[in-house]
Amino acid sequence: MSAGASAINTQWRLASRPTGEVGREHFEVTHSPLPEPGEGEVRVRNLYLLIPPSMRLWMNEKDTYFPAQVLGEVMTGITLGVVESSRDPSLAPGDYVNGLGGCQEWSIAPVGHLQKIQPRPGVPLAAYRSVLDVQGLTAYCGLTEIGKPRAGETLVVTAAAGSVGSLVCQIGKKLGLKVVGIAGGADKCAWLRDECGIENVIDYKHEDVAARLDALCPEGIDIAYENVGGPVMDMIIERLRNKGRVVLCGLVSSYNGGVTQNTASLMQLVNKAARMEGFLVSEYLHRYDEVIATLQDWAADGSLKYRIEVLDGLDKIVEAMTRVFHGKNQGVQLVKIAQEGTQ
Amino acid sequence: MSAGASAINTQWRLASRPTGEVGREHFEVTHSPLPEPGEGEVRVRNLYLLIPPSMRLWMNEKDTYFPAQVLGEVMTGITLGVVESSRDPSLAPGDYVNGLGGCQEWSIAPVGHLQKIQPRPGVPLAAYRSVLDVQGLTAYCGLTEIGKPRAGETLVVTAAAGSVGSLVCQIGKKLGLKVVGIAGGADKCAWLRDECGIENVIDYKHEDVAARLDALCPEGIDIAYENVGGPVMDMIIERLRNKGRVVLCGLVSSYNGGVTQNTASLMQLVNKAARMEGFLVSEYLHRYDEVIATLQDWAADGSLKYRIEVLDGLDKIVEAMTRVFHGKNQGVQLVKIAQEGTQ
Repeated sequence: MSAGASAINTQWRLASRPTGEVGREHFEVTHSPLPEPGEGEVRVRNLYLLIPPSMRLWMNEKDTYFPAQVLGEVMTGITLGVVESSRDPSLAPGDYVNGLGGCQEWSIAPVGHLQKIQPRPGVPLAAYRSVLDVQGLTAYCGLTEIGKPRAGETLVVTAAAGSVGSLVCQIGKKLGLKVVGIAGGADKCAWLRDECGIENVIDYKHEDVAARLDALCPEGIDIAYENVGGPVMDMIIERLRNKGRVVLCGLVSSYNGGVTQNTASLMQLVNKAARMEGFLVSEYLHRYDEVIATLQDWAADGSLKYRIEVLDGLDKIVEAMTRVFHGKNQGVQLVKIAQEGTQ
Repeated sequence: MSAGASAINTQWRLASRPTGEVGREHFEVTHSPLPEPGEGEVRVRNLYLLIPPSMRLWMNEKDTYFPAQVLGEVMTGITLGVVESSRDPSLAPGDYVNGLGGCQEWSIAPVGHLQKIQPRPGVPLAAYRSVLDVQGLTAYCGLTEIGKPRAGETLVVTAAAGSVGSLVCQIGKKLGLKVVGIAGGADKCAWLRDECGIENVIDYKHEDVAARLDALCPEGIDIAYENVGGPVMDMIIERLRNKGRVVLCGLVSSYNGGVTQNTASLMQLVNKAARMEGFLVSEYLHRYDEVIATLQDWAADGSLKYRIEVLDGLDKIVEAMTRVFHGKNQGVQLVKIAQEGTQ
């Protein structure tokens, strides 16, 4: 549908805050005429909506890295879209842009709030709002800036089949590291090994992780890229080498509470003068263009593998969020709001 | 007693390995004629023996930072002594030296194994084998090299009345930090406050540590110097500020096992891009002379406070180790082997 003066914008608004899982009843869907962009603004047709695990947290009363979602307002959404009309020379109709377009078909935004992207042949547009975006920056900068890898060192990655973890594994290999990926289940491990080329994979659900780490890292671990926490993190820390580094990117096992680390295991940080450091991608936005360009090169030549799962239509928001909540998504979860080329 | 050709050296040897607490029965005391130093060696009259908590661990079969003590050999001992006769131009009779002289009255050592010290007026000799030695280097370098303090920042120290902790508190104040010391019991807290001048003290045995931290660190914690681990460490980590640093010097609460950290608390390392790093004093021996000279200045002018507890006589080894094992020592524990000036 073309957005003329009479176009109607479908918008998903937060109607009430879920206490447990999100459902259709927590949203109100409205239809309003589309306003025109003002000076310095553009009108964007939203094409893809990213569904990160943290999206559920935005609906709570407590602020996250976004202010808490206001009831009745259009639900916050991390989007990729195409410019339809522009009142600023920096963007032209047909340009693709990343932005916070919200859970709606069209959005109006000042050009300063948007980031122009230049898709390359052979790389799907959806990748530019997932692995070739903040997730890629998180993987690359977390590994290089906090992990400070040197070729030949041993890197262990947890949640290794996840969107960030699988990139860390592959970037680690490209940097000349010996990479060991830890993931849960035969399917994820097979994908890491057969598609991503990570030879050393541990299935924590079906293998003795400590014994496998001993076998795969006989001289210990130089760098750990940690997304999970809990007992496996203890096992990794206990095996750190002198001056080892733990990149703490997330501790997803602890988000519902009740998970602990063995304090005695942390003594290995003392014994080896090792470092555990938290990573916040917001500290590295100045490296965005350079890092994403590198990752695009690898994606375009086929040497960087990733999985994206797309559900079709704004009305799939709840289903998509539920899949992510239960870890059922195979790859980064997105919702397609409109077909590419739709204008 | 002068060490002539006929002098007899009293030596404490390890007779058997204790399984629990150490007792007199684990030592054999022998008396042997004193050998003469060879070329490049000196004969040292041992004056002070340091009793660190780890001394008990040296008696086990497992290596520590020392190789495991051999049964029947003179027990390893960290000593301060005075040179009696020398066959090397670098040391002369009357020079004071630190070394690993063992649990015995005299020792023979190559000069390369000894460190000459130059006591200043007003500073007791025993300080040179305790706070003005590796403990001082541990406090100073741990705080400055790992903590990277900037004036005006907030520093929290655990085991703050201990030999290292109390130095860290005072060095922190000298560097312009706001210092909060956490210690157990009214006596220790009073000493920190009244003698060491640390105004902000928390008695973890009798106060609500979380509430007191909130009150004393309303803007959070920039640096933690951590010696203990366990629940108090969780409370500290939860209050770290952006880019906070945790100097991990020891985790003494965990040495008998069974202590845990809340994994969710560690998320604050991610949320604040904070760093927890282990500190090994052996990495900083190149700074020994410079740092100890600074600490000596402060000790000599009376601005650096410390407590030393001396038991008199080699036959007090077991009592001294037992006091340390039960934390009954008030200050660094030493045994006096001979009177200063005895030759």
